[in-house]
Amino acid sequence: MEMKPIGVVHTPYMSVENIPLCASEKLEAVAVVEVFPDYVEGLRDVEGFSHLMLVVHMHEATGTMLTVHPPIDDEGKARGVFATRSPMRPNHIGVSIVELDRVEGHNLFVRGIDLLDGTPLIDIKPYMPYDVRTVIKVGWLEGKAISQDDG
Amino acid sequence: MEMKPIGVVHTPYMSVENIPLCASEKLEAVAVVEVFPDYVEGLRDVEGFSHLMLVVHMHEATGTMLTVHPPIDDEGKARGVFATRSPMRPNHIGVSIVELDRVEGHNLFVRGIDLLDGTPLIDIKPYMPYDVRTVIKVGWLEGKAISQDDG
Repeated sequence: MEMKPIGVVHTPYMSVENIPLCASEKLEAVAVVEVFPDYVEGLRDVEGFSHLMLVVHMHEATGTMLTVHPPIDDEGKARGVFATRSPMRPNHIGVSIVELDRVEGHNLFVRGIDLLDGTPLIDIKPYMPYDVRTVIKVGWLEGKAISQDDG
Repeated sequence: MEMKPIGVVHTPYMSVENIPLCASEKLEAVAVVEVFPDYVEGLRDVEGFSHLMLVVHMHEATGTMLTVHPPIDDEGKARGVFATRSPMRPNHIGVSIVELDRVEGHNLFVRGIDLLDGTPLIDIKPYMPYDVRTVIKVGWLEGKAISQDDG
């Protein structure tokens, strides 16, 4: 299947090294999601939602590895790529949940993003109550610097 | 960008009409996520997570509409497609959060799925604590038959 960008994400992160590993820092970062003019009609009613799911093309990922060494993992073990959010997956699709501040025309002002500046946008979805689950087990991430959003 | 399937989802839903609108019914449905042999190495460590994010190709969606009439919406208004989870979006990508019961070889047994049987799988991601947000506003869905997961 072929995918086409519907917009582009403008973020404070110019390179992968700039993206914070710490969840609380991620949750503060502000960004602008620019939707291309052809798709603006699809934004109707979006401003009613407090959170959105952004689907993006992690365009700087150049290859695929089935096991990876995530930067947050201090145990130095190779983890299955599907047990990580590494961009080096078979399809370079990223999903990022963001808080919507406001919509101005074809621009969405959002908070809590961990994407590179210039990342192509593939889809926007409303984040729904049934997307909220009680996380019981986080596998190899247990005890590492990740935290749940409180608000 | 071009995407390739990494597996296929086996669910109880043979047609769109079979998929429950009610969130609590969705959360009970069991399904098998079959990963193709080439990608099985990437499943290492996945069994440690209680929830996964499945990214799929909503292969039966044939076109794109920028405004849609969601079946759950009794107001009869046209909603922007990005304010809905309709498959008729510009890129027919779906995201479904599921609870992982167990992994057996290349098969993941999961609960809480609302996908058609035979849906091509594009990606599997661990559902992380920072994916859990407190939903404050659900726009046009306010007061409709959706509910938050309690466990």
